[in-house]
Amino acid sequence: MLKLVGFDADDTLWHSEGFYREVHGHFETILGQYIDIGNANVHDHLLEVERTNIKLFGYGAKGMTLSMLETAVAMTAERISAHHLHEIIQLGKEVLNHPVELLDGIADAVAEVAREYQVVLITKGDLFHQESKVARSGLSPLFGRIEIVSEKDPITYRRVLSEFGLQPQQFLMVGNSLNSDVAPVLKVGGFAVHVPYPLTWALDHHEGFIADDERMRTVESSAQIPVAVRELALKAARFH
Amino acid sequence: MLKLVGFDADDTLWHSEGFYREVHGHFETILGQYIDIGNANVHDHLLEVERTNIKLFGYGAKGMTLSMLETAVAMTAERISAHHLHEIIQLGKEVLNHPVELLDGIADAVAEVAREYQVVLITKGDLFHQESKVARSGLSPLFGRIEIVSEKDPITYRRVLSEFGLQPQQFLMVGNSLNSDVAPVLKVGGFAVHVPYPLTWALDHHEGFIADDERMRTVESSAQIPVAVRELALKAARFH
Repeated sequence: MLKLVGFDADDTLWHSEGFYREVHGHFETILGQYIDIGNANVHDHLLEVERTNIKLFGYGAKGMTLSMLETAVAMTAERISAHHLHEIIQLGKEVLNHPVELLDGIADAVAEVAREYQVVLITKGDLFHQESKVARSGLSPLFGRIEIVSEKDPITYRRVLSEFGLQPQQFLMVGNSLNSDVAPVLKVGGFAVHVPYPLTWALDHHEGFIADDERMRTVESSAQIPVAVRELALKAARFH
Repeated sequence: MLKLVGFDADDTLWHSEGFYREVHGHFETILGQYIDIGNANVHDHLLEVERTNIKLFGYGAKGMTLSMLETAVAMTAERISAHHLHEIIQLGKEVLNHPVELLDGIADAVAEVAREYQVVLITKGDLFHQESKVARSGLSPLFGRIEIVSEKDPITYRRVLSEFGLQPQQFLMVGNSLNSDVAPVLKVGGFAVHVPYPLTWALDHHEGFIADDERMRTVESSAQIPVAVRELALKAARFH
């Protein structure tokens, strides 16, 4: 029997990736004062720096800001001014301060699911920033618990489930990321509702994912989440 | 009856503040190439920037690095070079990469307490960095659970206890900080063992703390922790 429904946060509950892209646009504009951004591939360079630094920084806006600074120093061959590097720090602060904008219909969808199941928010990223967004989202009263994790892999989902004293087949995860919300949950034996977001972070692309019609549903909008959860709950009931 | 013993991490399990001070020393040396650090109070200026930024960054090395960068830009009136700002980023990376050095006798002390009680690590700071330090410390097998929190206040301790399904009088916290490990735990009705560390972070000083002989012990070294826990456990037993 389904007992617990997890919700991802960034780009599942509130908009995130679009705002990061906006910040990257400002970042390119700053670098454009030093280099020909038409020829230099700023995006790929930043991504490479982020990929290296993620082992040390983990996910989140503070690590991204430090990676932008390192990219700026390297791509301008140390010519960039302290003034412009400080502007890049300000971009990072804007990300941290940005208002939380909920996705259409998500508050109702979470509330509807929460009437039937215990719901938990499971997100990776920066602890402090994520807690601040949850608080500002107005959704905290719906979530009995907030789990901020450093990686969303099978090991992490198993640990969270053991903390709740539940079996994987009693758990369903809702999220926009095949990589973080769907694949690892299916792998441990749980259920998943995939709600694709129009934009996907480059480090979050999932290669070679094979859908599992038995234990997952893909929906097009927040409003369709409760029905998909109910359908999969019927499947989960058969495990007993 | 005592059921759960929490251990703080930085400067309780492993050395931390001394290493931060070393990094601050390098930071001053870099700034000394631009300003007269004998006259400019770098320490106070950095502390003021950190105090402002902590509302946005939370605790941890990445936020500290961004605060050092902002302090450097401001104190040099934007004269500092990209090269030197990048050196400051490298200082932050050294903090994140620094080997974990356990305090003398702490592994034995935790192991001894763990034979009688469930032990949990409760620390604030950067999720990713703290998990990485726990993994490198070799102590993870002793801790059933790791709780990384954004603030160690009465609300947080109550939440953690409710997740464990425990009452405050079943909980004891061991740590070096009166502010974070002792005062809030006594406030919610728990027990505390204070293990002062020779160095205390400026933002962590506690003014006007009044000791509570009934529910706390102060010890001088890790080796004395298990005895203090046992003494307080006897007091806890009287609550039943």
